Amino acid sequence: MVTLESVQTAADRIRHDVIRTPLLVNETLDASLGCRLFFKAENLQHTGAFKARGAANAVRNLTPQQADSGVVTHSSGNHAAALARMARRVGIAAHVVMPHNSSVMKINAVRSYGVEPIFCEPASDQREAKAAEVMQQTGATMVHPFESHDVICGQGTMALELLEQVDDLDAVIVPVGGGGLLAGTLTSLKNTRPSIRVCAAEPAWADDTFRSLQSGQHEQPARYDTIGDGLRTQVGQQTLPIIRQFLDDIFLVTETEIAEATRTLIQHTRTIVEPSGAVAFAALSQQRSQFAGQRVAVVISGGNLDLSQGQYFRG
Amino acid sequence: MVTLESVQTAADRIRHDVIRTPLLVNETLDASLGCRLFFKAENLQHTGAFKARGAANAVRNLTPQQADSGVVTHSSGNHAAALARMARRVGIAAHVVMPHNSSVMKINAVRSYGVEPIFCEPASDQREAKAAEVMQQTGATMVHPFESHDVICGQGTMALELLEQVDDLDAVIVPVGGGGLLAGTLTSLKNTRPSIRVCAAEPAWADDTFRSLQSGQHEQPARYDTIGDGLRTQVGQQTLPIIRQFLDDIFLVTETEIAEATRTLIQHTRTIVEPSGAVAFAALSQQRSQFAGQRVAVVISGGNLDLSQGQYFRG
Repeated sequence: MVTLESVQTAADRIRHDVIRTPLLVNETLDASLGCRLFFKAENLQHTGAFKARGAANAVRNLTPQQADSGVVTHSSGNHAAALARMARRVGIAAHVVMPHNSSVMKINAVRSYGVEPIFCEPASDQREAKAAEVMQQTGATMVHPFESHDVICGQGTMALELLEQVDDLDAVIVPVGGGGLLAGTLTSLKNTRPSIRVCAAEPAWADDTFRSLQSGQHEQPARYDTIGDGLRTQVGQQTLPIIRQFLDDIFLVTETEIAEATRTLIQHTRTIVEPSGAVAFAALSQQRSQFAGQRVAVVISGGNLDLSQGQYFRG
Repeated sequence: MVTLESVQTAADRIRHDVIRTPLLVNETLDASLGCRLFFKAENLQHTGAFKARGAANAVRNLTPQQADSGVVTHSSGNHAAALARMARRVGIAAHVVMPHNSSVMKINAVRSYGVEPIFCEPASDQREAKAAEVMQQTGATMVHPFESHDVICGQGTMALELLEQVDDLDAVIVPVGGGGLLAGTLTSLKNTRPSIRVCAAEPAWADDTFRSLQSGQHEQPARYDTIGDGLRTQVGQQTLPIIRQFLDDIFLVTETEIAEATRTLIQHTRTIVEPSGAVAFAALSQQRSQFAGQRVAVVISGGNLDLSQGQYFRG
């Protein structure tokens, strides 16, 4: 079970493995949006995403026997690189199953940590089948990108830092894909400062969490091709109950809003932001009237943008 | 006279006006360069450059009578925006003389703080003549981008933060243009931790400081068209003596090295860096063998890059 204590234990366990990411402020955006913004810059985390936290906690919590057989995951994105990094850091094997159509940048990120990806067909069941096969052959421990208890606890450490970095927050906005970051954040915040409103932001083109919260059961999204590629995954069996218990609100944002938010954040925060990492800010921009005058933390969850994608650099 | 005490006073005076910028670390660059790097991210400072520090100290230190008549400066770059910001912040007039060929981005930055630039011919004597004319007409106080005592002290606060943020530094590398940041840094560091080596980095195409240190008198540079446009100014009468007294070494970098350093920093630190802001890192890269195994702080002095300049975004 994911508890405040398990997140606090994770924070202690991974303190030498992750960056205490800066909280960025921006006078221009404050003035134009009419609130006081604090950007939790997980795009400046190791591997360029909050995923470094969960991967670190999972790898550091392996038993010696488990460590001997290494770890395995399937991911097309930032979790793959984060797990490869941690495996190299502690000197164990990592097996990373990636869809053969993953972006070259993300494949290269995994390779940069000395891991050659195992390619598979993109469909979800194919990825899981290939990962299961690797587990069987190697005895490696599965570190799921968001269903793993240790991964959720690791992601929740972001919010504990936030509480140390800024006082009197009114609200926090967090993107949701598989829900690991959101569930961890809710666990951290609702068990310490329950009056802070925690809101999720989700692409309208990957709206399964929104639909699932409405219907009360796991739903499929409208479609699955949002530019927020880190959020194309379906919300987890482990994370949805935590989200349902604690979440205050969820906002859907359009592709245009995500692209505009990406450009705005790059221009004004002067950091590289990937579209998934701009989804929480897109929601804040859309809902600015309800946050007027408030102190709002907005999570920039990742910064692995293919820099040749000039469309996010305003001339 | 610029003293440690005057820098410490500045730090206290401007503490609510500037960002305590984060110190970024990067495992990939550490591994490829063979040293432990700490990037002082002044590109994440208000207005995107360390210039916010000096402008804040100068404006906060005006007498009430001086404040009534406003401030004036001439600058084609980041100091202009920094002064405009501070003037608006405290509610006084700012007169900013800019060459008519200044970049649109930098003109717009000044306008974004409610100041309409006064345009002049680009030549140095024309700029000074126009600024003198404005002083005469308005009674405004000149806040020179690097010859002002208060500006130099303000820039020196960067180094005081650095000492609080990291222990056991072996060296610090700072870019030099007019020399305000370098002189302030030397004052801070050589009066507290004289064993830390302080090195300057200068474009070979704006090498007047290098030449002046060699000859013992103020020299002209080889040429003045480096892509590090923030460093095209000649080193100051106030700053050169401080630099001569304290500086340990100075490195010249080529245009190719600056461009490559700009790309590398954007890619790996995931922050926006302008070419001037990458000159210190270019020097570190060039001189990596002499910094092997050391703990080195590298100042990223600014991040006002025209984002349509796709050449700094590697595909």
